[in-house]
Amino acid sequence: MFIGLFKRKPATLTTVIIGNTNRNSEKKSAIFLIDCSDRKGLVATITKFLADNNGNILEIDQHVDKHRKQFFMRIELDLNGFSIPQEDLKDIFDEKIGKPLDLNYKIFFSKDIPRMAVFVSKFPHCLHDILARYDSGEWEVDIPLIISNHAVMKPLADKYGIDYFQLDVTPENKEEAENKQLELLKEYDIDFIILARYMQILSENFVSKYPARIINIHHSFLPAFPGAKPYHSAYKRGVKIIGATSHYVTSDLDQGPIIEQDVIHVDHKNSIEDMIRKGRDLEKIVLARAIWHHLQRKTLVFENRTIVFQ
Amino acid sequence: MFIGLFKRKPATLTTVIIGNTNRNSEKKSAIFLIDCSDRKGLVATITKFLADNNGNILEIDQHVDKHRKQFFMRIELDLNGFSIPQEDLKDIFDEKIGKPLDLNYKIFFSKDIPRMAVFVSKFPHCLHDILARYDSGEWEVDIPLIISNHAVMKPLADKYGIDYFQLDVTPENKEEAENKQLELLKEYDIDFIILARYMQILSENFVSKYPARIINIHHSFLPAFPGAKPYHSAYKRGVKIIGATSHYVTSDLDQGPIIEQDVIHVDHKNSIEDMIRKGRDLEKIVLARAIWHHLQRKTLVFENRTIVFQ
Amino acid sequence: MFIGLFKRKPATLTTVIIGNTNRNSEKKSAIFLIDCSDRKGLVATITKFLADNNGNILEIDQHVDKHRKQFFMRIELDLNGFSIPQEDLKDIFDEKIGKPLDLNYKIFFSKDIPRMAVFVSKFPHCLHDILARYDSGEWEVDIPLIISNHAVMKPLADKYGIDYFQLDVTPENKEEAENKQLELLKEYDIDFIILARYMQILSENFVSKYPARIINIHHSFLPAFPGAKPYHSAYKRGVKIIGATSHYVTSDLDQGPIIEQDVIHVDHKNSIEDMIRKGRDLEKIVLARAIWHHLQRKTLVFENRTIVFQ
Amino acid sequence: MFIGLFKRKPATLTTVIIGNTNRNSEKKSAIFLIDCSDRKGLVATITKFLADNNGNILEIDQHVDKHRKQFFMRIELDLNGFSIPQEDLKDIFDEKIGKPLDLNYKIFFSKDIPRMAVFVSKFPHCLHDILARYDSGEWEVDIPLIISNHAVMKPLADKYGIDYFQLDVTPENKEEAENKQLELLKEYDIDFIILARYMQILSENFVSKYPARIINIHHSFLPAFPGAKPYHSAYKRGVKIIGATSHYVTSDLDQGPIIEQDVIHVDHKNSIEDMIRKGRDLEKIVLARAIWHHLQRKTLVFENRTIVFQ
Repeated sequence: MFIGLFKRKPATLTTVIIGNTNRNSEKKSAIFLIDCSDRKGLVATITKFLADNNGNILEIDQHVDKHRKQFFMRIELDLNGFSIPQEDLKDIFDEKIGKPLDLNYKIFFSKDIPRMAVFVSKFPHCLHDILARYDSGEWEVDIPLIISNHAVMKPLADKYGIDYFQLDVTPENKEEAENKQLELLKEYDIDFIILARYMQILSENFVSKYPARIINIHHSFLPAFPGAKPYHSAYKRGVKIIGATSHYVTSDLDQGPIIEQDVIHVDHKNSIEDMIRKGRDLEKIVLARAIWHHLQRKTLVFENRTIVFQ
Repeated sequence: MFIGLFKRKPATLTTVIIGNTNRNSEKKSAIFLIDCSDRKGLVATITKFLADNNGNILEIDQHVDKHRKQFFMRIELDLNGFSIPQEDLKDIFDEKIGKPLDLNYKIFFSKDIPRMAVFVSKFPHCLHDILARYDSGEWEVDIPLIISNHAVMKPLADKYGIDYFQLDVTPENKEEAENKQLELLKEYDIDFIILARYMQILSENFVSKYPARIINIHHSFLPAFPGAKPYHSAYKRGVKIIGATSHYVTSDLDQGPIIEQDVIHVDHKNSIEDMIRKGRDLEKIVLARAIWHHLQRKTLVFENRTIVFQ
Repeated sequence: MFIGLFKRKPATLTTVIIGNTNRNSEKKSAIFLIDCSDRKGLVATITKFLADNNGNILEIDQHVDKHRKQFFMRIELDLNGFSIPQEDLKDIFDEKIGKPLDLNYKIFFSKDIPRMAVFVSKFPHCLHDILARYDSGEWEVDIPLIISNHAVMKPLADKYGIDYFQLDVTPENKEEAENKQLELLKEYDIDFIILARYMQILSENFVSKYPARIINIHHSFLPAFPGAKPYHSAYKRGVKIIGATSHYVTSDLDQGPIIEQDVIHVDHKNSIEDMIRKGRDLEKIVLARAIWHHLQRKTLVFENRTIVFQ
Repeated sequence: MFIGLFKRKPATLTTVIIGNTNRNSEKKSAIFLIDCSDRKGLVATITKFLADNNGNILEIDQHVDKHRKQFFMRIELDLNGFSIPQEDLKDIFDEKIGKPLDLNYKIFFSKDIPRMAVFVSKFPHCLHDILARYDSGEWEVDIPLIISNHAVMKPLADKYGIDYFQLDVTPENKEEAENKQLELLKEYDIDFIILARYMQILSENFVSKYPARIINIHHSFLPAFPGAKPYHSAYKRGVKIIGATSHYVTSDLDQGPIIEQDVIHVDHKNSIEDMIRKGRDLEKIVLARAIWHHLQRKTLVFENRTIVFQ
């Protein structure tokens, strides 16, 4: 099944030059992502709990979906000076707020750098863009693992010292291949997965293991032109805009909750090749924005729609 | 069948204030719209014919669809100084160029102001926008006729002194109603029709009488969300952009050749009502751009795609 | 000085057809716009006050300008069921929250429909667009007054039954003219003013009477091309985008806090006339968005920047 | 003066994977870029010459600047079957067309791959993007040379096997440094230069050697915010859009003819750091589009404006 299983190399990133984030920073903060059925007094209760413990709120966003009567909130809390120690925060928050208010919530700490795997096939533009940002320190993330069903992007992975596994996927070996992928993801302790123009469809079983943690880039403005060869369909339909859509992957192909979309104008002069060329730039930027939102812990999924706090 | 058949009033437009076009101008020009199978020497042959007759080309655009091997050209010719008289131009061009080269072509003269009818239902924003441009002289067009299946926009038509006919359309009387509409279009000598959020589907028979001469505005970025209630569908799907599409009407609902599209970003905070509100601005602008292109004789339809020369 | 002083007519709006807002609605709400120096616990204190009085928060937005350490908040409160009567709200809020926390704040009630005056010169597109929205009930606003230094838009005002005053403005009579304008604004009980391509510069004295209550539309993407004839300058500079900017008017010409901006692409084929034509659509839409934000009480000005809650 | 002068390495590009262009293709074409004062019959004369020599025009674009009465044309000619041999084309065209019509013109052959140098300082995003496209074969170009006033991007150049020269530039040694740069450009046979966020101002002498052959990316929508720190200025002014501009470099800083511009929306929540982050994506895409246009030979400069044929 395996054409190749490449040995790991130590990561040799160029010096971090730019970057919004400072990996050695003393920033000590926690992010709360909360959702629950909407009621009076939620903001007051939650913010009072933080204030009573001498918490300094760095950022707060909330949204009420009035149609569905659902409440969403994101809080970024400065942990310096906060009277509850980091190691006790989850327990105390759960006891005092989470359980009594019956919240769905997650808490993330700035000290925990998320680990991302990238799946690719033959088109390099998204991977190039991701690795460029990684190399430059644009994102606070670790990328220890690239998985592909082809060998062509191995030299690119090598440039950045990232382990690259080539796993053939055929109708016959799909389950076996996915199991091997899942093993690798576990071995590399991966938090979330980017499908950077990975041309394979993941099984329901695979997807169920990473709910709202697999991000795909589709090369059309969904729901127009799902599935294969959207630029060809766009050309045939004679559209005057083409687009790209990044979304969380669910078991329904190209139907998952949308994180980010953008479009660019085309006209009658543009051939399919022109659309593919222009679309590449769109795809890589739209995917990068989605990754950014995810890394900032600014996304919440509810009933197949994505709340993206800005 | 008729709830009302309103009497005509003389048009009482406010003084033309702005306007790219001067209705009394001495501009004397002809526009050629040409398409044919692509061959060597087409541009040379056609432009040489014009040059040999002392023609001054004001604008020339051409496009070759390499995939379909089809040639398209638009020429705007200054008739001042041109050695062929305006009244003989069609005959001589046909004999010397059109027939020998086996061209599909149309010739339009600047002296002929096109006559436009507007069909509306209950949403006034596109009609308001059209009438504002008309009143201001933005477009070189006459609008003698508005047809609606409701009475609500009669006061608006009255403000601009345009004849307004209310024709109920029901499943039972549809053929009769369309026949009455066709009579009115004939009586008013209408060249082309704008469906300005007209919520009725035209029959194949009706559409066939005005090929590439009926322009619709659909409130989504087609081919996404065709048919009814696209904003509701967009909200449900959780898209991050909404759009509008103007297209020539064919007998396939929302499938006609696209003239113009544009989009605007939305996010999780936007309710369906917000999308409808933002979409209104998009719809009226996208429709107005399509009308502009059509009036400038910059559009050519081939195999369900629209060439729009800029 | 006056060429004409037209008599008032009773407003004869067409039936409200569309509209996000229902003028007869039983909606009873209050909007708080708050800003103050940033401190811990502000959100908790303010929302607790509302919750303790059985307040149902319909919308809440806040923003902290970390650079300037300033806190901004907008709350839309449902007054149904709120335990403090509407007529006492300002006093009690001031005593319990406003004074103790040293807040700058304003409270608006949904029952109070704002009154808007429009100043115009010779270009009708923005006025047309405003009146179309007014006529259609898109905005919850009253427009009792239009002031111009020309007569040309009187027929348009008449169509909508709005009082129109023509006041010549010359270097010699400027002070007198502005005094007359101020009298009219007072007489008509005007809350805020729209300069809808009004080509006169207002004096510092005039502007000081309506701080953050005069909205201008400038036909460029400021700070590029301030002052006169921006499209001519844009053409000369060979830019590939043109834009429009709506901003609150201050005594510095085209330097006031920006509310909304947008652009459109142009290319070498676009003449100055094309830019003016394309720009008109941009101007009217950008101005309308700014008016919408203002009417929704979503704008706050601080140090020449506008917070626009979305 | 030199901190480092790095040895050349053989280029070791990964296999060309995507790419609009096929470096080994049998495509044999010539591109004519023509401008002259406008007259009747220019198109006819030039296209007739090509047709008479059995030329197959692949693409033709022309533009007349009516204000300046200047004519511009770009023709892409299939050389297969053309009766004039490639090596004689320049001479014969000059004799038959160029001299008689008094044209300014250039002829480019598809066989000649242009050679591009990149100048960088400390920000890697544009260089990363350029090298990714180069590595993927998106562009038909050779990049043999990178010049910088810093050492930080040496490892990145090494990844792609491109020679990298670090040349300190100080007020004292500027002339000497530029002379060294000019030598390198000559030695490497460079056709055109990209300033990929190169933070040094080039002297008039330097610029005069590469007219319309140096492309800069400026991180604002010029003419707004020329010079240093445009994002800081944009933040201070409170703009609602930020932009990027690519232009040919002239001796007037940030005043050269604009090739491409684009913008992105920002709001009050965006800090200067957010603007810098969002702007990076804009900068690299806008620069890449400009390079694409230049490589396609689609640009012509006239009176500080750039014609960009699409």
